[in-house]
Amino acid sequence: MNESLFSHSHLSAFAKEIFLKIGCPEDQAMRAVESLLRADLRGIDSHGVARLSGYVRLWEAHRINTRPAIRVVHESPSTAVVDGDSGLGLVVAPKAMEIAMAKAKQAGTGWVAVKNSNHFGIAGHHAMMALPQDMIGMAMTNASPLVAPTFSVERLLGTNPIAVAIPAGQQPPFVADFATTTAANGKLEILQRKEKEAPLGWIQKKDGSPSSNPNELKNGGALIPLGSDREHGSHKGFCLGAWVDIFSAVLSGANYGPWVPPFVSFLNPPANPVGEGIGHFFGAMRIDAFRPANEFKKHMDQWIERFRSAQLVAGEEKLIIPGDPEREFEIDRMKNGIPLNTKVVADLIEVGKKFDVPF
Amino acid sequence: MNESLFSHSHLSAFAKEIFLKIGCPEDQAMRAVESLLRADLRGIDSHGVARLSGYVRLWEAHRINTRPAIRVVHESPSTAVVDGDSGLGLVVAPKAMEIAMAKAKQAGTGWVAVKNSNHFGIAGHHAMMALPQDMIGMAMTNASPLVAPTFSVERLLGTNPIAVAIPAGQQPPFVADFATTTAANGKLEILQRKEKEAPLGWIQKKDGSPSSNPNELKNGGALIPLGSDREHGSHKGFCLGAWVDIFSAVLSGANYGPWVPPFVSFLNPPANPVGEGIGHFFGAMRIDAFRPANEFKKHMDQWIERFRSAQLVAGEEKLIIPGDPEREFEIDRMKNGIPLNTKVVADLIEVGKKFDVPF
Repeated sequence: MNESLFSHSHLSAFAKEIFLKIGCPEDQAMRAVESLLRADLRGIDSHGVARLSGYVRLWEAHRINTRPAIRVVHESPSTAVVDGDSGLGLVVAPKAMEIAMAKAKQAGTGWVAVKNSNHFGIAGHHAMMALPQDMIGMAMTNASPLVAPTFSVERLLGTNPIAVAIPAGQQPPFVADFATTTAANGKLEILQRKEKEAPLGWIQKKDGSPSSNPNELKNGGALIPLGSDREHGSHKGFCLGAWVDIFSAVLSGANYGPWVPPFVSFLNPPANPVGEGIGHFFGAMRIDAFRPANEFKKHMDQWIERFRSAQLVAGEEKLIIPGDPEREFEIDRMKNGIPLNTKVVADLIEVGKKFDVPF
Repeated sequence: MNESLFSHSHLSAFAKEIFLKIGCPEDQAMRAVESLLRADLRGIDSHGVARLSGYVRLWEAHRINTRPAIRVVHESPSTAVVDGDSGLGLVVAPKAMEIAMAKAKQAGTGWVAVKNSNHFGIAGHHAMMALPQDMIGMAMTNASPLVAPTFSVERLLGTNPIAVAIPAGQQPPFVADFATTTAANGKLEILQRKEKEAPLGWIQKKDGSPSSNPNELKNGGALIPLGSDREHGSHKGFCLGAWVDIFSAVLSGANYGPWVPPFVSFLNPPANPVGEGIGHFFGAMRIDAFRPANEFKKHMDQWIERFRSAQLVAGEEKLIIPGDPEREFEIDRMKNGIPLNTKVVADLIEVGKKFDVPF
């Protein structure tokens, strides 16, 4: 596959122009760019500028409001429900995370459920906002239904990711960010581009039987919850995806399960919505609401060092602490550039032409 | 395998006598029995009266304090850290959950990290305490190290379960309660008793290669995080187990990772502890801190009904909503009795003899 490198600043400037062209205020355009580019930097290529044209098409379909009045519609000392006013999830999510952190400053923790939002990029970016405040950050979201619960052939859940970001001291932070399926949808997109087969246990056919075809979803197939099959715990993956769905949407008043609107603009949202838009859930916990932050960080360092020095299976190089690979990507790509494949570049050039913004 | 049925009231009365004999005050003995028997009722046989003799042996080894002064050592409006004073986890956990619920009444949510505790039985029991208060309940705990993180041969984590209990309206509540491994240790114990092989993907040998021997842990093997292998997401299972460990122990000041003291009395706790006892983490979220409880419950009913009526894989009977099987067990066993196998009965008779309490 042909790839070219682009600098973070180049892609940021381009994406910002596009967000301005579709009507985002300056501050929101910058925030959207920060969320979006973080995915490219961290190596989650499926969620970065490759999705820019998708957001634009949703705006063209009048499904994204680029001048949202994001507001708190219900609250308690440690909680809030936020109405995203159909805004870009890339903008709504950081705003909701800020509300969670403000609550945590007062009450020790803050928990914010969001309705009426759209795709928010990578969960990890929002969770990590808590780190500089010596807080633990959490972020989750529901998403277009692509996943069949154990024993079912219907796509009832999204890949519903969970992110947990935990500060350390000398060590870099612990940042887990993962889809609650065996494999994220982005992994399938990579196999599709490379025309390779998927391992069994990632995807099922329309009738629920195993498939290794990364295009199986186009034939009515589905992704499988983490665990792969009942014997290996796919019911636990289903529990996780369901938990994310309920916290994100039933607590907030968003759409849940099969009613979650699709990300792609060529598919219409269900005609009988049970809520508003898609839902997210955020948490911020002040470390010193539990124990002094320096004590906590000292022990986090010890935790990370002990695990990092674990005895390995012969032939393996290292035990990966959650967040390690993404941090290495971020350092490398900030310095050396972000690789984009030919198809993504062509797509960005197209988007640029639409608004008279040269890529 | 030979099994006999015993009534809930018979087993409760017996267990209570034993807890009184080892020094528990009356109210704590009752609370311990309630936690313990809930496991038997809900079909999680490995965590019920089958463990009674184990708790007694820990007490004999002076590792359990049956007159604990359980107290809050740090707090904020929505958080607390509780010192369990080496008490029975079966008693410390419900007390900590009550503190979480009291915080939630005031602040919307309550989050309690616990140190200096012991094995707390099944996580689901504690999470479910929130349900009658129209709250969402969460419970997690770390445990004796039996699990090797992805790419490692060392046992660095416990089976670290997570429970989430969510109230509904007409429908029974959603209650997820699962080990963050492919299979819980109790599942291995059942295979050991039946002298059957385990599926590949549950256990690894001392060198990290696959094993189907349910006794492999005695040879230096390890349990595997949910996902079974890297290709099927075992690094996500590791994230989950690590998250539970950090919330339970690094936030509270308990032992974490390989330093968690073993449940079995014949193995000594590590000589160089990094904290006190084992750790738990509890959460309670008042539904009406997010939206009116009746609205939420109406949507939970709709969520559950939609998933329950999902189109199934041919030959499958139903889609299991988390909590369904355990609730069915509970109804059946409360009415018809709790089956105990010969080995467990013999063990209970032995314990009884020790204290002059006939089983």
